[in-house]
Amino acid sequence: MSRCWIAGWIVLAAVAVQADEGMWQPHQLPLIEEDLRELGLQIDPNRLTDLTGFPMNAVISLGGCTASFVSPDGLAVTNHHCAYGAIQYNSTEENNLLENGFLAGKREEELFAGPGSRILVTVAVDDVTDEILGDLSDSLGGGERYGAIEQREKAIVSECENDVGHRCRVAAFHGGLEYYRIKQLEIRDVRIVYAPPKGIGRYGGDVDNWMWPRHTGDFTFYRAYVGRDGKPADPSADNVPFRPKHHLTVSTAGLKPGDFVMLAGYPGRTNRYRTASEVSDYINEYYPTRRQLLLEWLRTIEESTADSPADAIKYASTIGGLNNSIKNYQGLLDGFSKSGVVARKQELERGLQRWIVGDAQRRKRYASTVGQLRGLVAEAKAVREPDMYYGFIGRSTMLSTARRLYRLSRESGKPDAEREPGYQERDLKRFEERLTRIDRRYAPAVDRATLRRFILNYAALAADRRVEAFDEWFDIGEDGVEEAALDAKLDAMYAKTKLADKQVRLDWMGMKSGKFEKSKDPFLRLAVHLWDSDRAREAEAEDRSGRFKLTRPQYMAALIEYLMSEGKEVYPDANGTLRVTYGTVRGYKPRDAVYYTPFTGLQGLVEKETGEEPFNSPSALLQAIADESYGRYLDDELKTVPVNFLSSVDTTGGNSGSPTLNAKAELVGLLFDGNYESIIADWDFIPEITRSIHVDIRYALWIMQHVTGAHELLREMGIEP
Amino acid sequence: MSRCWIAGWIVLAAVAVQADEGMWQPHQLPLIEEDLRELGLQIDPNRLTDLTGFPMNAVISLGGCTASFVSPDGLAVTNHHCAYGAIQYNSTEENNLLENGFLAGKREEELFAGPGSRILVTVAVDDVTDEILGDLSDSLGGGERYGAIEQREKAIVSECENDVGHRCRVAAFHGGLEYYRIKQLEIRDVRIVYAPPKGIGRYGGDVDNWMWPRHTGDFTFYRAYVGRDGKPADPSADNVPFRPKHHLTVSTAGLKPGDFVMLAGYPGRTNRYRTASEVSDYINEYYPTRRQLLLEWLRTIEESTADSPADAIKYASTIGGLNNSIKNYQGLLDGFSKSGVVARKQELERGLQRWIVGDAQRRKRYASTVGQLRGLVAEAKAVREPDMYYGFIGRSTMLSTARRLYRLSRESGKPDAEREPGYQERDLKRFEERLTRIDRRYAPAVDRATLRRFILNYAALAADRRVEAFDEWFDIGEDGVEEAALDAKLDAMYAKTKLADKQVRLDWMGMKSGKFEKSKDPFLRLAVHLWDSDRAREAEAEDRSGRFKLTRPQYMAALIEYLMSEGKEVYPDANGTLRVTYGTVRGYKPRDAVYYTPFTGLQGLVEKETGEEPFNSPSALLQAIADESYGRYLDDELKTVPVNFLSSVDTTGGNSGSPTLNAKAELVGLLFDGNYESIIADWDFIPEITRSIHVDIRYALWIMQHVTGAHELLREMGIEP
Repeated sequence: MSRCWIAGWIVLAAVAVQADEGMWQPHQLPLIEEDLRELGLQIDPNRLTDLTGFPMNAVISLGGCTASFVSPDGLAVTNHHCAYGAIQYNSTEENNLLENGFLAGKREEELFAGPGSRILVTVAVDDVTDEILGDLSDSLGGGERYGAIEQREKAIVSECENDVGHRCRVAAFHGGLEYYRIKQLEIRDVRIVYAPPKGIGRYGGDVDNWMWPRHTGDFTFYRAYVGRDGKPADPSADNVPFRPKHHLTVSTAGLKPGDFVMLAGYPGRTNRYRTASEVSDYINEYYPTRRQLLLEWLRTIEESTADSPADAIKYASTIGGLNNSIKNYQGLLDGFSKSGVVARKQELERGLQRWIVGDAQRRKRYASTVGQLRGLVAEAKAVREPDMYYGFIGRSTMLSTARRLYRLSRESGKPDAEREPGYQERDLKRFEERLTRIDRRYAPAVDRATLRRFILNYAALAADRRVEAFDEWFDIGEDGVEEAALDAKLDAMYAKTKLADKQVRLDWMGMKSGKFEKSKDPFLRLAVHLWDSDRAREAEAEDRSGRFKLTRPQYMAALIEYLMSEGKEVYPDANGTLRVTYGTVRGYKPRDAVYYTPFTGLQGLVEKETGEEPFNSPSALLQAIADESYGRYLDDELKTVPVNFLSSVDTTGGNSGSPTLNAKAELVGLLFDGNYESIIADWDFIPEITRSIHVDIRYALWIMQHVTGAHELLREMGIEP
Repeated sequence: MSRCWIAGWIVLAAVAVQADEGMWQPHQLPLIEEDLRELGLQIDPNRLTDLTGFPMNAVISLGGCTASFVSPDGLAVTNHHCAYGAIQYNSTEENNLLENGFLAGKREEELFAGPGSRILVTVAVDDVTDEILGDLSDSLGGGERYGAIEQREKAIVSECENDVGHRCRVAAFHGGLEYYRIKQLEIRDVRIVYAPPKGIGRYGGDVDNWMWPRHTGDFTFYRAYVGRDGKPADPSADNVPFRPKHHLTVSTAGLKPGDFVMLAGYPGRTNRYRTASEVSDYINEYYPTRRQLLLEWLRTIEESTADSPADAIKYASTIGGLNNSIKNYQGLLDGFSKSGVVARKQELERGLQRWIVGDAQRRKRYASTVGQLRGLVAEAKAVREPDMYYGFIGRSTMLSTARRLYRLSRESGKPDAEREPGYQERDLKRFEERLTRIDRRYAPAVDRATLRRFILNYAALAADRRVEAFDEWFDIGEDGVEEAALDAKLDAMYAKTKLADKQVRLDWMGMKSGKFEKSKDPFLRLAVHLWDSDRAREAEAEDRSGRFKLTRPQYMAALIEYLMSEGKEVYPDANGTLRVTYGTVRGYKPRDAVYYTPFTGLQGLVEKETGEEPFNSPSALLQAIADESYGRYLDDELKTVPVNFLSSVDTTGGNSGSPTLNAKAELVGLLFDGNYESIIADWDFIPEITRSIHVDIRYALWIMQHVTGAHELLREMGIEP
C-alpha cells in the first residue's frame, strides 16, 4: 500500500467538517477555516498552525495533562487534579496541603512538584511517515515489522534529542497510516505556586466526578524553572523562572451561552474508528472485567489502609485515579447499553463493504483488508482476559520494580540504539525518578494485599490460560493456590526484600545482570525466574502488534476513503499529541423533560453544601458568598459568580487542564472533565449529549481575589493593578 | 369579636390576587375575574360559582380523592391510585387486577368498588357562621365551647340530611372564623369500569412518587349507579347508571407550555397561616418522629408479610400509603431545611405585631391574641409526642375495632343528637362497611407485629408521659416492658379474640354496653379497661381544641386584616371542601443549572424502562411505541405522545384525580401528584418551584385506543365515533 493518495483525502475532509466533534491536528485548521469563522473565531486560523507562535506555543503538556503559560515568568495554570500527586507529594499528616491548599508567599517558597514532574513545550511536529514506512515490505513477519518500526522510531528520536533539553517521540496516526515526530522542550524543574484547598479544588469529589451540574474549582498554578542560561536544568535553588516565548492572556470578560470556544491540549486516546466486533468485545468483556479488577484493587487498598492515615495519604492519588477509572468504565457500560453503538458500527461496516465491492480498483486494494483485521481482532480477543489477570499481578510495586531493574541490567548490555524503549540512556533520568518517587506512594502492607488479591484472581483461571513459570514460583496447581501457602510465601518475600529501601533500589540501577541472577532478594529472584517466560510472551504480543501495524492502516485507508465519499469529516484518533477542538458554550438534554443549562453559579454550590466531604467548602468561601463579595466577577445575567460551564468541544483524558479560549484566543476557562454522557464519546461521539466541563476562569480569579487572597499572582497575570 | 367586618376584607382580597398560589372557594372567583381572563380563561367566571351548573357540578368527591363525570351515563374518571384500594379489593392471587388491569367488557361486568366506596356530588355550600358562633360567649370554657359548637354543627347536619340521599357537614374556614354547611348527594353504588395494569397506572412506583420527570398513567374509570328512581341506593344488580346533570367534555386538543389551566377539586388540608413556633415544632419534632414511626410500621408490615403473598396483597394499599407518607414527610423536612420558612414566618409575625401596636383600635382588638395563641401552641406541643406514641398503638386493627364497637354501645345509650360524631344513626352504614372491609385488609400476624412494635416504642417513654390504665394492662413499669411477657400476653389475646370474624364484629354492633363489660374477648376487655382513661384524655383534648376555636379565629382575623393592608391575597386553608385553583403549564428550575421542561413523552418512558418493577411497562405498550402507533395523539412539537405535564396550579392531597381544565373548561388532564418541592407548599407556597403533576389526557386516551383497546368507553366519551 502506498500512501501518496492519502494527503488528498485530508484536504477533502475540510468540506464536510462540522463543529463539536473533532480533535484536529493544528495543521488541519486552515482547512476548516470557514467553520471556525462562522462559529465566531476572530483570529486568523493560520496562526493556530504555528506551534512556536501565539497561542499554540503557550499550550504545554504535563505528560498526561495539559497546562498553559499565563505570564511572562513561566506561570502555568492546570487542573487541581493534574497537580494532585504533586500536592500530595508535599503533604504530610502535620501539614496537609491537599486539605488546606497552598499559596507561596514569595517565589522562593514555591514547592518542587516532585521527581518526574515535567513541563513539555511542543516545538515541532513533522511528518516522518516515509522514514518509518518507506521501503518496508508488506511481506515482513509481524515480529520483524514491529522490530523494524521500533528501530526506525528510535533512530528518529535519538537524532532529534541531540538537541539538548528536548524530548522527542514518534506518534502513529490512524493506527500507523501516518507517523509524526513530536519534539518538545522538556522542563524538569516544576514548582507548585498555588493550589486551592481540597474543599474547592475537589469540591463534589467522586460523587460529582463526570457529573453536571458541577461546582469544582479544579485549578492550580505551577511555575516552570530553568537554569540561569534559560535551558532546562535539574531542580535546583539556582534555577530561575522560565520565560516562555508566548503566554495566554487571562480574560475576565466571560462567556455567554452560544459563545464560540476552542481548546488546545493533549488528548490521550480515543477509539472512534474501531470495528463493531472490537467495540462489542470491549463492552461485553474487557470493560466489565477490568472494572471489576479495579474495584477489587480499590477495596484492597481501602481495607489495608483503614487503620493507617499515613498509608492512606500515600495511596490517596492511586485511590483517586481508581475511583475515576471505575466511574469511567461504568459510564462506558451505561453509555454503551443505550447507545446502539455496535449496531451503528455494523451499519458502517456494511456500507464500507458495499463501497469496497462496488468498484474494481477498491476491490483489488481492500478486498482482503476487512477479513484480515477481523482475524487479528479475534486473535487479540482470545488472549485478552488471561493477559489482563496476569498483567494486574504486575501492579505490585515490588514485583514491577524488580522486573524493571532486572530488565535494565539486561538491556544495558546492548548498544543504546538496540535497547527496548524505556531502558535507553535517554530514559535513565526518569527511571531514577520513578524509583525515587516510590517512597511517597508505597506501603508494604498495601502492596502485599494487592499482590495477594491479584494472584488469587489469576489462580482461578483454567491452568491452560495461566503462565507456567509464574505458577511454579507460587505453587499454583490444577486446583489453583492454597491460601495459607501463598500467605506464607508472601510474608517471607516482603520480610526479606530490600527493594522498599530507596538507596537499595537506586544501587541496583547500576548493576550487571549477573548480580541479579545471584541475588537472594525474593522479588529480584522472581523477576529473574520469569524472564524467559515474560520475553516469550512479549515476543508473541509484538508479533501480533506488528501484524496490526500492517493491517490497521490499510483498513483505516479504506475507511477514510469511504467516509470521505460519504461527505464525512476525518480527524485522527487522539494519541497524546497536540490537538485543537472547537465548539460553543451549550447545555443539553440529558433525559426526557430535563434540560441542563450551561453555567453553574455560587448559589448552586451553596445548595450542595453539606459541611461533609466532598461537599465541604472552606468557611471563607461560604462567608464571601454570604457577604455577596463578588467584585467584578458578578455575571449580570446569572446574577452570581459563574463556577463551571459546559461546551460542545471534543475532549478526553489528557485534555485535563487545557486552556479554554474565547474567539480572541484569550483564556476564559480550564477544561477539567466531560459529562457522564461523554464517557462513551471515546468510542462514539453523539453531538446532542456529549459535553465538556470547564472551570470558568472568573471563578478561579474570584477565589484568588475574594477568598484566599492571591493578589501577587493576580498582578502577575495582569488582573489586578 | 364580631365578624361583621370580615366580608369587606374578602372583597378587598381580589385586588392583590395573583395566579398559581390559592385554593379559591368557588364564590370568590368572580372577584378575581380579571386575573382569570388575563391568564386565558375563555368562559364566564360566574359560571364557576354555580355548584349545580356546568362545570362545577361534574366535579365530584370520592372522600379523600376527587373525580369528575365524563359521560351522561355517570362515567367518572379519577386516579389509579385513588382506586387502588378498590382494585385491590377485587384482586386475588389468581386474578390480580392490580397487576393485569381491568376492562369491563359490558356494563354488567363492572365491578363493585367495595364497601365504603362513595361518590359525593356537592349540591350546596352555605355560610352558617352566624348559626354556629352567633351568641356564643368568649367567656365559655374550652370544653363548653367545643361542646356547643359540636352540638350546633350536629343540629345543622341533621336538619340538612333530612333530604334523603344526601350527606352534610359543617366545615370551618380560617380556623373557625367562618363556617359553611356543605351538602352532597351521596352515591353508594360505585363500580370499576376500567383500570390500566399497574405497569402503567403505577409506573415509576415509589421511586418516582413526587418526582419529575414522570411517566405514570395514573387514571382509572368508575361509574356511579343509583336506584331505578334515580336516587342513591345500596349496591344492587338492579341499580342503573346515574345520569349527572352535567359532565365534562374530554378534549384531545392538548396543551402547550404557557397555556392556561384550572382545576376544581377537594384539597384536604394545608397550614399556610400557622405561626413560626408551630412550624418550627412540626419541623423539629412532629415530622421527624412521625416519619420514624411510619417507617417502623412499614418495616413491620414488610417483615411480617414477607412469606405470605396473600397477606402482602391485603396490606398493599396500606404499604402504598405509608411509602407515600414517608416520602412526603421526608420532602417536608428537606424542603423546610432549605426554605427558611421559619424565618419568613417570624418576619411576618414581627410585621403583624408592628401593625397591631401601630393603631389604638387594633391594639384594643388584638393586643392579647398573639400571646394567647402562643400559649395554646406551647400547651399542645407539650402533649404531642406522648400522644403520638400512644396514638400509634391504636393503629392495631383489633384494638381500634374493639374501642369503636364499645364506644358505639355507649353512645347508642344516648339520644341521637347527643352522640359523638361518627356514632350517630347517620354513621351506622359506614360503620358497618368499615367493619366489613377489615377482612380484605387484615392479617392477625401483621396486626400483632404492629401492635407489639408500637407498644415497645411507647413503653420506652418516661413513666409520667405514659397512660396509667394502658400500662396496667400490659404490665409496663418504671423500666418499660418485658418483651417475653408482652409476647405471651399478645399471643393469648390474638389466640382468644373473635373480632377477626366479620360476623362476630357485625353482631357486636347491636350490643348494649353491659354485654361488652361482661365479654371475655381480650380486645373488648382492653377497650372497656381503657374507657375512663381514654374519655378523660379526650375531654382534655376537647378543652384545648375549644380554646383554639376561640383564639385561632381571632388571630386569623388579625392576620387577614394585616395581609390585606399589605396588598396580599387571602384564601382559606384547604379543608376538604370544593376549591378552584388556576395557573399555567410551566416548567421550573429545581436546582442550579437544571431546568425541568413541562411535558414528558413516550420516549422518556422507554428511557426509564428496565423490565423490573416499578419500571415494567406492559409489552403491548412498548410494542405500540416501537411501532410508532401514535394516531391522533402525536404532539407535533414534542414529536411523541405526551405522558405527564407540570403546571403552576396550587394543589394538595385530596386533589388527586381532579380534572385539569383548559380555558374552555374542557378536561385535558388529571392532577395526580405534586413535585418534590411542592411538599412543603402545604406550609409555605414558593411560586418559583411549586408545581402540580398531571396525566395528559391524551396519554390516557392513547392507551385506551392503541394499547388496551377500550373503544366502547372512548365512544361513550365521544372520542371515537
